[in-house]
Amino acid sequence: MNLKEFAARIGLSQTTVSRAMSGYPEVKAETRARVLEAAERLGYRPNSIAQRLATGRAGAIGIVFQGGGRFGPHSSEFMGGLSTRLQQEGIDILVSTVESAQDEAAAYRRLAASKRVDAVIVHTPARTDERIALLQALGLPFIVHGRSEAEKPFAFLDIDNFGAIAAATKHLAALGHRRIALINGDTASTYARDRDKGYRRTLAAEGIAVDPALTGHGEFTDETGFRLMQGFLALPAPPTAVIAGSMMSALGAMRAIRIAGLAVGEDVSLIAHDDVFPYLSPDNLVPAVTTTQSPIRAAGERIGDMALRLLQGEAPEALQEVWPVEFVIRGSTGAARS
Amino acid sequence: MNLKEFAARIGLSQTTVSRAMSGYPEVKAETRARVLEAAERLGYRPNSIAQRLATGRAGAIGIVFQGGGRFGPHSSEFMGGLSTRLQQEGIDILVSTVESAQDEAAAYRRLAASKRVDAVIVHTPARTDERIALLQALGLPFIVHGRSEAEKPFAFLDIDNFGAIAAATKHLAALGHRRIALINGDTASTYARDRDKGYRRTLAAEGIAVDPALTGHGEFTDETGFRLMQGFLALPAPPTAVIAGSMMSALGAMRAIRIAGLAVGEDVSLIAHDDVFPYLSPDNLVPAVTTTQSPIRAAGERIGDMALRLLQGEAPEALQEVWPVEFVIRGSTGAARS
Repeated sequence: MNLKEFAARIGLSQTTVSRAMSGYPEVKAETRARVLEAAERLGYRPNSIAQRLATGRAGAIGIVFQGGGRFGPHSSEFMGGLSTRLQQEGIDILVSTVESAQDEAAAYRRLAASKRVDAVIVHTPARTDERIALLQALGLPFIVHGRSEAEKPFAFLDIDNFGAIAAATKHLAALGHRRIALINGDTASTYARDRDKGYRRTLAAEGIAVDPALTGHGEFTDETGFRLMQGFLALPAPPTAVIAGSMMSALGAMRAIRIAGLAVGEDVSLIAHDDVFPYLSPDNLVPAVTTTQSPIRAAGERIGDMALRLLQGEAPEALQEVWPVEFVIRGSTGAARS
Repeated sequence: MNLKEFAARIGLSQTTVSRAMSGYPEVKAETRARVLEAAERLGYRPNSIAQRLATGRAGAIGIVFQGGGRFGPHSSEFMGGLSTRLQQEGIDILVSTVESAQDEAAAYRRLAASKRVDAVIVHTPARTDERIALLQALGLPFIVHGRSEAEKPFAFLDIDNFGAIAAATKHLAALGHRRIALINGDTASTYARDRDKGYRRTLAAEGIAVDPALTGHGEFTDETGFRLMQGFLALPAPPTAVIAGSMMSALGAMRAIRIAGLAVGEDVSLIAHDDVFPYLSPDNLVPAVTTTQSPIRAAGERIGDMALRLLQGEAPEALQEVWPVEFVIRGSTGAARS
């Protein structure tokens, strides 16, 4: 039975049947249920090429990574959430890995020209990000994971990075800490700038001078956390507290603190931002780590949902979310020793 | 400048130019270099659709996951390696997430029919695995990550799971341990069966009776490791050593040992299989963990390479590799207390 015969048999148009079976949300839930039930009962299996031609949809969402090495724990949790949502609609994820920013732009041109994806997810945006203007010019729908500035509105989901690090800094200041270090991510990115702002403004509000020697940045790895923390501890006036941008940086920082013969939570207080990795819980570390917390898997799932709504015709300006970040106090923070 | 003009200009056929620029390895390296140099110099940009039609290639390798929840640290390291290799050839990865084994089979049928991928990667095979016969019948090229049994030969890469766990068990027996527990993965999978065999045969060779109460299996998570280890420690005759199938299971097992008031490496020896996660090094744990070790990222990279060779026409039986596993002794293993 082909599409034409099947559609005639159940008294619906070929387009409606295709759209219902392709999983895109233009079709009412009850119609889709009816189509799927009839397909099951009558043994109809859609031909994918015919279906794609009928709907004009690729049935895939694209995501571009710069360098396979960047494919780490954050991307896997994000992809897990994204795929959980897209799976419900039978939509795939096309992963392109490229060498440089220039290659990333070329990848978007290629994806737009080849119609292999219906939309793309842009991650780790800069404050002004050329990718946004490019995608708008190409007419390729997109959702930004993070925030940026652009003339025309676009869809995005971000967490409150400013608020998270402001809360962490304020908590440490309230415990009497005056030398608070910050291990940040790549400061070309909005999220790292927002975190830096949250840190500086809170220090200023608490009457604490910013010491440039107490901030550092790099990739969110154990190694970077270790190296930066060792540098801080070697200063003539080392910090009594540190804020780590990720659980991975926190692991390295904790190791550096221990190697220096100091105790986390007693000699040096530690707060980490936790994107929530099921295998790396702050509760399991010794001592349990105080965190600012927002599950990146949930963000992936929500962004999948936003992409589907964008393709359904919702305006980008209606698809903009900033999520608050939880603050959870555990054993790694304590009063500053006088 | 279109493909026809560009090809004429540099004196090569359109097919050769397309294949050179699509990155597939049919074209000699020097020819590809010449094409890429000329494209750069003359400002020629290929049209992706034309290129795909010309080469008959999708320019993507597929991978199917059952459940977005399965997208975890192992998949991310594997994908990182795979994408590192495919990136060099400008080839994408199409990720499909499905609900069930039946849906996974449907996904392969769909991928084969729609020509959206040139090959797929099959992971976590069972000893006899229906996916292999299905893909052979569909004529969709594939590489298996793991091992299986099938009538017709197929390409695969596996690690020596039998040898790894045999070495771990033997080391513990040599240290005087007689009650050795095993935290395994899903025993429907070949890798878990191989590990189980390595454990049982070594125990038999050492004259140690197998106690079914000392083996357990489940997903490679902290939670499963914790739960199984708590169960072992509650036995009338608890184990003095444990082999954990992953670093994640090991984290949970270590926590259970500590909560029971016991010391890892003194009261209970621990060996973990380490797929090598840059953010979860066995050297960083306290005590450092003895491991059987094989980087899953390297396996992903190699499988990308094998997929390209398969598409280039190499026979599946020429693409079969079993990697030895390293054994690294650290502080978590010690002599059994008498």
